[in-house]
Amino acid sequence: MLRLTIYSIASLVLGPFGLYQDGISQNSVHDLAPHCDHVPPISKAEFDARQAALSSELHKLNALAYVAEPSANSQFFANFSSVNWKLSERPLLLIVRPSTGKSETEVQPDLTILTPTFEVLRARGLPVSSFKNSGVRYISWAEEANPYSTALSGLGIAPDSNGTIYVDSSIRKFIVDGLQDAGPNLRIASAPLEITSLRERKSPAELEILKCANEATVLAIRNVHRQLSAGMHESQVRSMLASSLRRTGLKDGGCLTLFGSNAALPHGTGTDRVLQQDDFALFDCGGSLHGYISDVTRTVALPGARIPEDHLRIWSTVKAAQSAAMKAARAGALTREPDEAARAWFRLSGLDKYFTHRLGHGIGLQGHEQPYLRGGSDDIIQTGHVFSNEPGVYIEDKVGVRLEDCFYIDDSGMPRYLTEGVGGPSHSPWAP
Amino acid sequence: MLRLTIYSIASLVLGPFGLYQDGISQNSVHDLAPHCDHVPPISKAEFDARQAALSSELHKLNALAYVAEPSANSQFFANFSSVNWKLSERPLLLIVRPSTGKSETEVQPDLTILTPTFEVLRARGLPVSSFKNSGVRYISWAEEANPYSTALSGLGIAPDSNGTIYVDSSIRKFIVDGLQDAGPNLRIASAPLEITSLRERKSPAELEILKCANEATVLAIRNVHRQLSAGMHESQVRSMLASSLRRTGLKDGGCLTLFGSNAALPHGTGTDRVLQQDDFALFDCGGSLHGYISDVTRTVALPGARIPEDHLRIWSTVKAAQSAAMKAARAGALTREPDEAARAWFRLSGLDKYFTHRLGHGIGLQGHEQPYLRGGSDDIIQTGHVFSNEPGVYIEDKVGVRLEDCFYIDDSGMPRYLTEGVGGPSHSPWAP
Repeated sequence: MLRLTIYSIASLVLGPFGLYQDGISQNSVHDLAPHCDHVPPISKAEFDARQAALSSELHKLNALAYVAEPSANSQFFANFSSVNWKLSERPLLLIVRPSTGKSETEVQPDLTILTPTFEVLRARGLPVSSFKNSGVRYISWAEEANPYSTALSGLGIAPDSNGTIYVDSSIRKFIVDGLQDAGPNLRIASAPLEITSLRERKSPAELEILKCANEATVLAIRNVHRQLSAGMHESQVRSMLASSLRRTGLKDGGCLTLFGSNAALPHGTGTDRVLQQDDFALFDCGGSLHGYISDVTRTVALPGARIPEDHLRIWSTVKAAQSAAMKAARAGALTREPDEAARAWFRLSGLDKYFTHRLGHGIGLQGHEQPYLRGGSDDIIQTGHVFSNEPGVYIEDKVGVRLEDCFYIDDSGMPRYLTEGVGGPSHSPWAP
Repeated sequence: MLRLTIYSIASLVLGPFGLYQDGISQNSVHDLAPHCDHVPPISKAEFDARQAALSSELHKLNALAYVAEPSANSQFFANFSSVNWKLSERPLLLIVRPSTGKSETEVQPDLTILTPTFEVLRARGLPVSSFKNSGVRYISWAEEANPYSTALSGLGIAPDSNGTIYVDSSIRKFIVDGLQDAGPNLRIASAPLEITSLRERKSPAELEILKCANEATVLAIRNVHRQLSAGMHESQVRSMLASSLRRTGLKDGGCLTLFGSNAALPHGTGTDRVLQQDDFALFDCGGSLHGYISDVTRTVALPGARIPEDHLRIWSTVKAAQSAAMKAARAGALTREPDEAARAWFRLSGLDKYFTHRLGHGIGLQGHEQPYLRGGSDDIIQTGHVFSNEPGVYIEDKVGVRLEDCFYIDDSGMPRYLTEGVGGPSHSPWAP
């Protein structure tokens, strides 16, 4: 149904094969408008709530502090990341402490930035969101000083203190070493699930951003699919896709673009293949909106393509595996279950050995983040979790098919596609 | 002297102010040729020697293995880095083990790459250099398996083993956690000086590369200096510098480009200031040759510029501080001594409070690497060490001057500038 609709509209607007000219038709420029102008970024109130939740968890865990380098976690909790401050050998750290007021129930987040002294001006320019605008404390370490001792002493943590400091697990080892040397009795450990799940489980505002970013990504792919023709190079179509993603309003957009047997390597090849009339084309696309990442894969064909029967069968099996996985995803299930459901489906047709990667990954401020939908994992799916659902079949030197849509677990515990608003998953190689 | 020479040649070739046109004069395109075509990359034999030295140190330290993610250290020991393999949540690790043959004296390096199974083809395509072409072992972990247990079991390290695994200290904490969980009795520690100094102390081949890269950087700066004129924007000159660096044969070249008071922030501002006739212009430039990084800073003036007397005095003081630091640098001295020598010099004229950063950093495969020339450091300067010598004075809203040349410690224990071959440090703001 959708296929017919799309091609009916497309043929009215663009003629049968679109109006391809120098990579972008005039019509297509106009039919892709910014899609997400109505979606606001994360609000000040939400940053406050994240910090409050973090300090509350730290308090419950009886921890001294949470420490992160500029990263997705510093972005989540305090609105700055390595985009604002490139990692170097000089530590710049976000430190969040639970500050207890008069009563035990009043735990408040206390934000500190540890910064090199000679860069303190630049550090003060970071767009840090502070709890209820109560301000951020800057502790600066001089070039000749030990940054970690400076931090502990500035925070009032004695060098012989006991207690736990939780760190972002992506932090570099030498930072952990530095903290440990400055406080030999401290326990420096990666943040536990109580803390990591704060970011893993998405809020309504985050879901709105992720939905719109993924919708825009689908629209961009469809737009390029309408302009696709035999003889185009992967590099050319990659540029068209990047341009389309930009026109939908996404930032830093790009697509893995693989034609024919090149798609048999899930992460691509180094060649720049030309599209043949009867090839599949695989587009694995992402862009960002307010720092949140989209991820959509479509495996498409040209109008009139005579795709080999066995390749079409693979496409349909991948599509069915994607549906099977979706049915197994719900709050309370283990993250391995949807993976196993997709794998079981492939087993029926003997294709399981060609499904060489996990089913999916968490997604949000990072393109791939905890938790993962993979065999062997005992993580529990919870409401607010967002995952990619991306089964694929890769037969070397022959064919590669992957279909990917991201979904979230709604308040009732059921999975819903982020791409629902634009029709959800692909219906056929001709209706992405 | 040099100043006169340069300007004599320049005025013959380019006329008094060069022949500036759209950012690059025709003449300047021709007068910058690839400078380092005669300098070979690191040889196979040198990679063998590095691996042999690493395995020998591991053996002496009674360690089980050395582990690094794609990084400068994996580049140093095995010829691949994050340029070849982007870091992701899926660990890809270089593991080097000391393998003892028949006798204790025959320790040989044993190279393993831990790779995700579904990316094993791409991992096998990494340009890994293996000891005497003895080959690399690939241990692959399936998506549903624990990568770290897979690695230990593949290496024949039982889960209850004791012993030490040394890691690159830039490794991410979750990798350390993974190894520790897979072998709870193992000691997972950052590599000690015996290992880190293998990379810190440069070989003759490395020094040749670093010399040529730094010479080329000076030539590129001089070329742009000759084309400089009042009214140019920082962004425009930044492009000219990047283009000049490229024409000398350096890769990924770029310069921090700051005019007038903008140079008072050592790491720059966000504005795009226009060059005034009597401004200083600060260029902090680097590029890469065979993966090794150059780093040169020049603070220059336009021909005929009437630089304020106090700014000229600052320039000369910075120059003198650079010389003073150089005199204090020799094998056996502490890394804090050259820093202190420069600082002492500034103290004489009351400028010490404006020298807000350390004197310098190690440099090689990374732009900044261990050891550092800074107060508070007890590291010992050794032959083969390479450092930047970059004193500076930064007076907010007024002026910023930095001069930077890198030097190495030769076999006799004395410091020599990498830029010696093109005349060494800047002679005046008009003779960079």
